[in-house]
Amino acid sequence: MGKDKRDKPRRPRAATPRGFRDAFGAEVRDRAAMLARIAEVYHRYGFDPLETSAVETLDALGKFLPDVDRPNDGVFAWRSEDDDWLALRYDLTAPLARVYAQHRNDLPTPYRRYAMGPVWRDEKPGPGRFRQFYQCDADTVGAASVAADAEICAMLADALEAAGIERGDYVIRVNSRKVLNGILETVFGAGQLGANGSTREAIEVAFRQVAENELIEKSDAVMRTLDKFDKVGAEGVRELLTTGRTDQSGAEIEGVGLDPNFAGLLIDFLMARAGTNGETVANLRKLVADSDTGLEGVAELEAISGLLAAQGYGPDRVVIDPSVVRGLGYYTGPVYEAELTFEIHDAKGRKRQFGSVAGGGRYDDLVKRFTGQAVPATGVSIGVDRLLAALAEKRGATPAEPGPIVVTVMDRDRMTDYQGMAAELRAAGVRAEVFLGGGAMGRQLKYADQRNSPVAVIAGEDERARGVVQLKDLALGARLAADIETHADWKAQPAQVEIPRDALVAEVRAMLARAGS
Amino acid sequence: MGKDKRDKPRRPRAATPRGFRDAFGAEVRDRAAMLARIAEVYHRYGFDPLETSAVETLDALGKFLPDVDRPNDGVFAWRSEDDDWLALRYDLTAPLARVYAQHRNDLPTPYRRYAMGPVWRDEKPGPGRFRQFYQCDADTVGAASVAADAEICAMLADALEAAGIERGDYVIRVNSRKVLNGILETVFGAGQLGANGSTREAIEVAFRQVAENELIEKSDAVMRTLDKFDKVGAEGVRELLTTGRTDQSGAEIEGVGLDPNFAGLLIDFLMARAGTNGETVANLRKLVADSDTGLEGVAELEAISGLLAAQGYGPDRVVIDPSVVRGLGYYTGPVYEAELTFEIHDAKGRKRQFGSVAGGGRYDDLVKRFTGQAVPATGVSIGVDRLLAALAEKRGATPAEPGPIVVTVMDRDRMTDYQGMAAELRAAGVRAEVFLGGGAMGRQLKYADQRNSPVAVIAGEDERARGVVQLKDLALGARLAADIETHADWKAQPAQVEIPRDALVAEVRAMLARAGS
Repeated sequence: MGKDKRDKPRRPRAATPRGFRDAFGAEVRDRAAMLARIAEVYHRYGFDPLETSAVETLDALGKFLPDVDRPNDGVFAWRSEDDDWLALRYDLTAPLARVYAQHRNDLPTPYRRYAMGPVWRDEKPGPGRFRQFYQCDADTVGAASVAADAEICAMLADALEAAGIERGDYVIRVNSRKVLNGILETVFGAGQLGANGSTREAIEVAFRQVAENELIEKSDAVMRTLDKFDKVGAEGVRELLTTGRTDQSGAEIEGVGLDPNFAGLLIDFLMARAGTNGETVANLRKLVADSDTGLEGVAELEAISGLLAAQGYGPDRVVIDPSVVRGLGYYTGPVYEAELTFEIHDAKGRKRQFGSVAGGGRYDDLVKRFTGQAVPATGVSIGVDRLLAALAEKRGATPAEPGPIVVTVMDRDRMTDYQGMAAELRAAGVRAEVFLGGGAMGRQLKYADQRNSPVAVIAGEDERARGVVQLKDLALGARLAADIETHADWKAQPAQVEIPRDALVAEVRAMLARAGS
Repeated sequence: MGKDKRDKPRRPRAATPRGFRDAFGAEVRDRAAMLARIAEVYHRYGFDPLETSAVETLDALGKFLPDVDRPNDGVFAWRSEDDDWLALRYDLTAPLARVYAQHRNDLPTPYRRYAMGPVWRDEKPGPGRFRQFYQCDADTVGAASVAADAEICAMLADALEAAGIERGDYVIRVNSRKVLNGILETVFGAGQLGANGSTREAIEVAFRQVAENELIEKSDAVMRTLDKFDKVGAEGVRELLTTGRTDQSGAEIEGVGLDPNFAGLLIDFLMARAGTNGETVANLRKLVADSDTGLEGVAELEAISGLLAAQGYGPDRVVIDPSVVRGLGYYTGPVYEAELTFEIHDAKGRKRQFGSVAGGGRYDDLVKRFTGQAVPATGVSIGVDRLLAALAEKRGATPAEPGPIVVTVMDRDRMTDYQGMAAELRAAGVRAEVFLGGGAMGRQLKYADQRNSPVAVIAGEDERARGVVQLKDLALGARLAADIETHADWKAQPAQVEIPRDALVAEVRAMLARAGS
């Protein structure tokens, strides 16, 4: 028997790939609206939008993937027909470095750009942790001055407020990698690292005094450990930097193996934040002793907080905080992080602070990868999904977005009339649709409920003959169902009224106004 | 000698992968603004946004990639760590089918949704043809009524006008696959195909009378050939359907091998459009003779044009045109296409019509792939990049978007003052930035020019002491350079004025108002 090509194919499974998700309705609109408000702030600061494609050569993306233990993994990549390795961008900074290197002769310098869009990571998904998520970045490329860092911090504050985070509900914490580098120099007598050495280089130089091997692994381990200060506190960091630690679940976590004195100095650094920016600076100055790099870092922090204070961004919004480390090895100067300070309840009902929603810093080596020349750059990335989640938390359970007015269909031959009613409402700016499925009135009203429609329009043959339509106030119906005390109102405001056909738009508007929508 | 791990790595190439591109500045903002305007129209019609992830399982996407000769190719796909094949979506319809199948118990029926975003195709790039491009779709799933098709056509007209295409500059051409199916039945006596058979099935049934093999290949060849009517005209199509054709370059193109009578009837179908929709319908009714499927198609076209005319969408905006075939095998009923009717000049300076910017139709089998149950659906996809290009053509060369006010830096120690000036301007809603690069005043003014800045602010020690600033009107400077006749104005309006520091915002606003920006 020949093979029958017309065999029914196996049915595909209707599911997103693991770690991916769909966004519906209000979520999509809320995100778009928030990004538009942030884009307006960025634009007003002179930043220009840039939209690179989702796909880059793996070569151009490089191995800078932050916050993962295995930086080579974590990227969705494939070999193209041209035999290039292509990959989905894992952040918006790596494409910016490629763009600036590629177009530097045509772009202004400094180049201020913002970018917003999804990025992809081939990491293990978890609760609230997806393989595609949004970022919203602003960077200044080609400006060595800390005024650029200060500007990003001010703009970040404005962006958070534009997004709907009230002043007092967030704080931007600023630190400088040069201070950390200076402390490393002091401890190890490692010599001057030069003004623009990355922290990774600093730690490498430091470790060269004590060990010849595994420099990069060690330096990354130190960075990651310092970054855990918010979670495990000073003692936890001390243990992790030295001999190791037993965590809450009883698991043994290996230590980095630092000398306890060295670890102690790093802890002092993390805890140097004082009551005022001035006192914090004084603490840091003591810690860096006579390291030029460290003193430069302290001076930068002074300059940034000075510039910001003069523009009204005082310590209620921007504060020097040495416990902000940020794991990324590539930062070379100021680093900053925006934290939401209000309390939320986690999945288990425990109170906790919402935490970080944005972060960034100065990096000078990303463009150098392509051109061989270091280009100073600084920038911030807002975690869009976390910020949206924060706004939703803050707002609490809000009523769902009202749906469209639903014009029901009593008589299929009168579709033209029904479409005309919907068109009239839309022309008046009211969201409206005709029910286009099958089924009797009950099913249509159930559909209208499912759509969260505030008003259903009903017009059968009898209504047509008399030149009227029925309006069913579904929002009122819902309120009545929710609150039995309004029974008196119910009589005064029956949930269904008959109105002249000509008054459709005016009456619907009046109902919407009463519903407050 | 041991291998030195600190060898300098080879530098990566700073370039997009072949067929990809970057979008800068105004292009990004123009697209975002256009999509927001279209989204508002879709939303007002009761459509809800849906944003699926860029990545789907290859299995879920299926092999429906339109408009390519090899439907298995053309998709960027890779094998994931979980051993699934993943792929970038090639359109927004395949993900919709997956979403509806996955969430059908939670979604309203009918489900009206819109979606906008990039799609990816692994096809050979060419001029204006990229491997990532935007689509902007609206679909109604679960509505069998042609009122849903009519609604999409009306909404498409509104969307084009919202995007900036004036009435008279576009026309939406509507056809029905059922009419074509009916003609196939008539010719071959192939029996009734059933109301919802796809055109591919119809052609397969038709060809079963004449040939046993290569049914799908033949049917696709017929569809593609009919779709070339706009390009090669009636005679061209006749040749291609029968014995073949020699094209302009002298290349021989093989014919499909149809009987000339059959080909003739198809040509009559393509050319059935008359002066009014009523006459077109009469022509089609003659051609489908007594085929039930064909008559059903004719009735659908009558209903659609009737519904639209009653809402004011007359033949100046929506017209029945049987030459609209659309290559996609999966359409089962009405198909529609929006064409821009104004003339543009192509790369070689020849006049031509801009052509199609959107298209769609009714398809009933996409959800069935997952669930086994046919779900009626209809929808449109707007080619965003083509529509943007059309608007740019229509608008002609417009002046570039004005850049930000540039506050120059005469004295680095006064950065606080300069930042304060920019902040004041921004607080007044004026886009402004401080120059943060290095260099003397000449370089700073060159930067301001490159940014297309309308006004530069200059304030040195002398100005500070006297409480003034200098404003350099760069927009006026550019106009003066462009038009020598305004020399008298030049004296009246010198390009640089000294103003009190306190008057900064007011004077800048006045200059912007004079510049008309």
